[in-house]
Amino acid sequence: MIIVLKPKVTKKEIEKLSKALKEKGLSPFLSRGKERTIIGVIGDERKLQEMPLEIFPGVEKVMPILKPYKLVSRDFQKENTVIDFGGRKIGGKRVEIIAGPCSVEDRESLFKTAEAVKAAGCFFLRGGAFKPRTSPYAFQGLGEEGLKLLADAKKEFKMAVVTELMDPRDIEVICRYADVIQIGARNMQNFRLLKEVGMLRKPVLLKRGLANTIKELLMSAEYIASEGNLEIILCERGIRTYETETRNTLDLSAVPVLKKLTHLPVIVDPSHGTGRWDMVDPLAKAAVAVGADGLLIEVHSNPEKALCDGDQSLKPKKFAQLVKELRKVAKAIGRDL
Amino acid sequence: MIIVLKPKVTKKEIEKLSKALKEKGLSPFLSRGKERTIIGVIGDERKLQEMPLEIFPGVEKVMPILKPYKLVSRDFQKENTVIDFGGRKIGGKRVEIIAGPCSVEDRESLFKTAEAVKAAGCFFLRGGAFKPRTSPYAFQGLGEEGLKLLADAKKEFKMAVVTELMDPRDIEVICRYADVIQIGARNMQNFRLLKEVGMLRKPVLLKRGLANTIKELLMSAEYIASEGNLEIILCERGIRTYETETRNTLDLSAVPVLKKLTHLPVIVDPSHGTGRWDMVDPLAKAAVAVGADGLLIEVHSNPEKALCDGDQSLKPKKFAQLVKELRKVAKAIGRDL
Amino acid sequence: MIIVLKPKVTKKEIEKLSKALKEKGLSPFLSRGKERTIIGVIGDERKLQEMPLEIFPGVEKVMPILKPYKLVSRDFQKENTVIDFGGRKIGGKRVEIIAGPCSVEDRESLFKTAEAVKAAGCFFLRGGAFKPRTSPYAFQGLGEEGLKLLADAKKEFKMAVVTELMDPRDIEVICRYADVIQIGARNMQNFRLLKEVGMLRKPVLLKRGLANTIKELLMSAEYIASEGNLEIILCERGIRTYETETRNTLDLSAVPVLKKLTHLPVIVDPSHGTGRWDMVDPLAKAAVAVGADGLLIEVHSNPEKALCDGDQSLKPKKFAQLVKELRKVAKAIGRDL
Amino acid sequence: MIIVLKPKVTKKEIEKLSKALKEKGLSPFLSRGKERTIIGVIGDERKLQEMPLEIFPGVEKVMPILKPYKLVSRDFQKENTVIDFGGRKIGGKRVEIIAGPCSVEDRESLFKTAEAVKAAGCFFLRGGAFKPRTSPYAFQGLGEEGLKLLADAKKEFKMAVVTELMDPRDIEVICRYADVIQIGARNMQNFRLLKEVGMLRKPVLLKRGLANTIKELLMSAEYIASEGNLEIILCERGIRTYETETRNTLDLSAVPVLKKLTHLPVIVDPSHGTGRWDMVDPLAKAAVAVGADGLLIEVHSNPEKALCDGDQSLKPKKFAQLVKELRKVAKAIGRDL
Repeated sequence: MIIVLKPKVTKKEIEKLSKALKEKGLSPFLSRGKERTIIGVIGDERKLQEMPLEIFPGVEKVMPILKPYKLVSRDFQKENTVIDFGGRKIGGKRVEIIAGPCSVEDRESLFKTAEAVKAAGCFFLRGGAFKPRTSPYAFQGLGEEGLKLLADAKKEFKMAVVTELMDPRDIEVICRYADVIQIGARNMQNFRLLKEVGMLRKPVLLKRGLANTIKELLMSAEYIASEGNLEIILCERGIRTYETETRNTLDLSAVPVLKKLTHLPVIVDPSHGTGRWDMVDPLAKAAVAVGADGLLIEVHSNPEKALCDGDQSLKPKKFAQLVKELRKVAKAIGRDL
Repeated sequence: MIIVLKPKVTKKEIEKLSKALKEKGLSPFLSRGKERTIIGVIGDERKLQEMPLEIFPGVEKVMPILKPYKLVSRDFQKENTVIDFGGRKIGGKRVEIIAGPCSVEDRESLFKTAEAVKAAGCFFLRGGAFKPRTSPYAFQGLGEEGLKLLADAKKEFKMAVVTELMDPRDIEVICRYADVIQIGARNMQNFRLLKEVGMLRKPVLLKRGLANTIKELLMSAEYIASEGNLEIILCERGIRTYETETRNTLDLSAVPVLKKLTHLPVIVDPSHGTGRWDMVDPLAKAAVAVGADGLLIEVHSNPEKALCDGDQSLKPKKFAQLVKELRKVAKAIGRDL
Repeated sequence: MIIVLKPKVTKKEIEKLSKALKEKGLSPFLSRGKERTIIGVIGDERKLQEMPLEIFPGVEKVMPILKPYKLVSRDFQKENTVIDFGGRKIGGKRVEIIAGPCSVEDRESLFKTAEAVKAAGCFFLRGGAFKPRTSPYAFQGLGEEGLKLLADAKKEFKMAVVTELMDPRDIEVICRYADVIQIGARNMQNFRLLKEVGMLRKPVLLKRGLANTIKELLMSAEYIASEGNLEIILCERGIRTYETETRNTLDLSAVPVLKKLTHLPVIVDPSHGTGRWDMVDPLAKAAVAVGADGLLIEVHSNPEKALCDGDQSLKPKKFAQLVKELRKVAKAIGRDL
Repeated sequence: MIIVLKPKVTKKEIEKLSKALKEKGLSPFLSRGKERTIIGVIGDERKLQEMPLEIFPGVEKVMPILKPYKLVSRDFQKENTVIDFGGRKIGGKRVEIIAGPCSVEDRESLFKTAEAVKAAGCFFLRGGAFKPRTSPYAFQGLGEEGLKLLADAKKEFKMAVVTELMDPRDIEVICRYADVIQIGARNMQNFRLLKEVGMLRKPVLLKRGLANTIKELLMSAEYIASEGNLEIILCERGIRTYETETRNTLDLSAVPVLKKLTHLPVIVDPSHGTGRWDMVDPLAKAAVAVGADGLLIEVHSNPEKALCDGDQSLKPKKFAQLVKELRKVAKAIGRDL
């Protein structure tokens, strides 16, 4: 850590600061430049995360050198984390697609959708049973009944199920049915929930919050990892900007940035990322081209009747066509799909 | 609701859309302009919130006319909501200050701080027992022990206690000790938590999420209200922008905008809003001048030793001086403090 | 245009507003719903752009129906605009790459770079002679000398030259040497400059401002078009968001959105869009996959010695490799490169 | 400057980097920590602004210590810059208000407005003759005729005139009539224009761009200062965020931040900052309370007929009332108005 001091810092102020640093077991080194004096701090600067250094008189600014996360960083583990689901893997050479309806609504539409997803060559079925909805008056999901339908579809079509956890009190019931537990964008910094899924032995799909930085996403992954669960899939799903033509701005640069910083697999959700079904096709292709390990795509057998996010869902036929085209893009960059 | 149709919309497309609207019990009216045809929809457009209208062929865009919230809007209740705490009121003519440490750390520092807050003329004591921390390695709060210390300070200094709820499993224990339950910025869209506090009969302090719009803040308040609890205090605490000189950008315009849209009291948190103790003074004054009903200010008897947010905490002496000056600003705009 | 009135609007207020609308030659139609009364305005709502409707008492909000631009919209012209440079075209089936150094520095490095760009199969050479630099103390470009070097390289390698115009006083000199005139992101709303290039008969490359919406980009294109010049190439080059890992956030969704709204060609600049040379490769591929008509890539024969933007420039060898791989991605989506 | 090296940096890479730094006349010092090695660079790091350090192999990140601006910083000049207009001063104890119409439209309305502004006790008259308008079809200002009307009003009411410069070719004519030259938000990084006004001996009012950081605003002021003109007034006028209830988000925190970093006066424009006339009153009060040296307020004798920005203009009567109330707020914080 580097502490930049104010031009008129006094000797006494420097001494006070040095003393406080030493009390934390760190070694401060003073370095005088022409315009500024700085203190370099040797030692584990993570100890300083709780220390309000900028309030010390004479301090102008504090610049950390080390990354605040550890277990999820490339420094800690060089090789990609690959998560194995009985043969199908997330994080390997093959780009995997997780598809299905925004929310589970009834057996018929779920089965139609699941069948179509499977027929297109995909193995992961997504579907929400507990739904975070902006309006208290909107459809909130079927709850456990929805989970049961997912389990039925899983059995019928031999797929793996991805579903969202919103409340620590639902962990048990969700674990009974899900293969991957999704933490939604609005819960990316629900730290209690992160700890809970950290204690499970089940893969977690962690979506980036719509106003969270890449660093904060990694810090949230670190929460899960610090409890012992390292099977974490990161998901870029659009961030909030001033642009209003799309619901969010899909930050595809985040994919190569994350691939440098972490060993965890990174997938992209072009459905939520744009909020418009007619944008899913080009952005899905771009996501594969940019290096994503997978995609999360909303498919619905009858989007016009969907109770949730129909505006951004693809029909099965369009989805099947898209998967074919994505396969070509994957090949072009040397991957499978 | 107004539905704008594409220039080349077909008769059949219009019929399909009209039929779908009528099935929801709404009356569509067609109006042909020179460049566009539009459909005006008469009836309760809230029924359409779940309907994916933009996916219908021929639809260019959909523009809602009504606000998506109801109970918390000025249309619904003209008079300001005033919340009474045995005489001291939030939402009345008097600007109230809620002050205290970011987190409760020990009896001595809490009591020193509480004493100073009370001595400055303030009645509301804040302090966190369960803390949402970005890093899993940082101090996470004292838990129930912290709540007990708050209760002791409350008794000793005759104050009301404001503390944060992060997890639905903590509701019972927090209700035992708190006078106001705070929902933090990161949980503004934790809808399950909102429903739970909606079922309580205790005032709720709802902080705006750092990337949430004013409309979303009101939708989250509507969640609480829709369960029967209308004692909600809204809090602006800074939003995320590209500017990095301050931790967040305090959106003071939100105060007069909210006062127009809702009858609920609105307060401002200049400590989190800027993340810098030296910015609290000017921004607190600005918040009073702009019309806030209250302030949330972090005070710590010894910020340099604080385990959390020391960088943005005021010392008791500075706080007492600030309250005096705020009183003058309040008077200047015709309010008390 | 739809004007939504306040719940308690008076008859007199409605009359005043209606009168004002009629004075502009527009026909207002009143429509009473259960909760709100609205006025639909028939006629060319562009006349209302200068009219401060929201200040009229009784008005709650104003919602335009039509797009504020005309000549550049898909409604106005269905077919793609294709700009022909003696055979090589921008806006056609082939994805074109414009490459070269950020600024022209000297003959040797420019020629080396141009040779490499040409050898990779590219036809368009970019290079700045007048440079907009954030710091007054940084290298500001060679001026006309730089333009002459570009002209020499153009002749030597038979390429077309793209260079930036910053000041209306430089139009004549730049026109003497350039094939495409670039309007940089910081000048996207320099309306006087837009008018000037609108009067030329030379293609214009218009970059999106780093905080401008897609709609504003199209309005700036409309400025150029309204003076008679319709040979406009739009360029997405990253927008400003809260994320700091990349210099900007490349908004690839803007490409398909623009392709729907306008007939103009759309290209992408992954070099400025990310500010990091190691991100250019994946983002360039994503840009082709998402449907861009071209790319703008910074190449420098010796980036470590570059006087400007060396951090985001590719070396010739890396560039040649990238072009090869981009060709595969283009093929995968049915285009050439 | 601190250069953080990658964990696996080689000796050769360090040598190459050190050599390059020494060639620039700087002294690198190596410091090995447990997890990272860093290089501290002693000497004028402004020399490194043009050097692409992040492209050197082995470099992880580069952290500047010094501010990139100099002449406008508090380090360079401790005392506030006060700009004197024959007795009335900007930057002194008195908060000054600059008021008038968005654009000059005709003699009658300008004189009515000017008279009202003067009667309220204000000395500075604003009015645009050349207007930057988003739409090419909107009113673009009266040009020199507008300047002449401003000069007439100035003479009649003994005021100082503030008007905007958009094009370097208008400098001469604007200088003939204006007392303060305004550089609008869209031209904050029009570096050629900044240089031109830097060479004048007339105060410049520099507005913050709607997506520019505080640091960039100071860099633009440095451009002006580096040419010799230090009479610069900075103006916060709202930044672009995701919030859509107000046209921009007025960043009042910028005022105290700027007052720390620079000796230049700082004013606030609540009219453009919110885009809504009904928000001007509370935000103007907040701007005074937060410590602004002045305000820029749009006043129009008949906003409903205004050709530009009528939605955000105050009527003379409302303006006079506001000035009275602002005077009380100024007194409350120990200033005059």
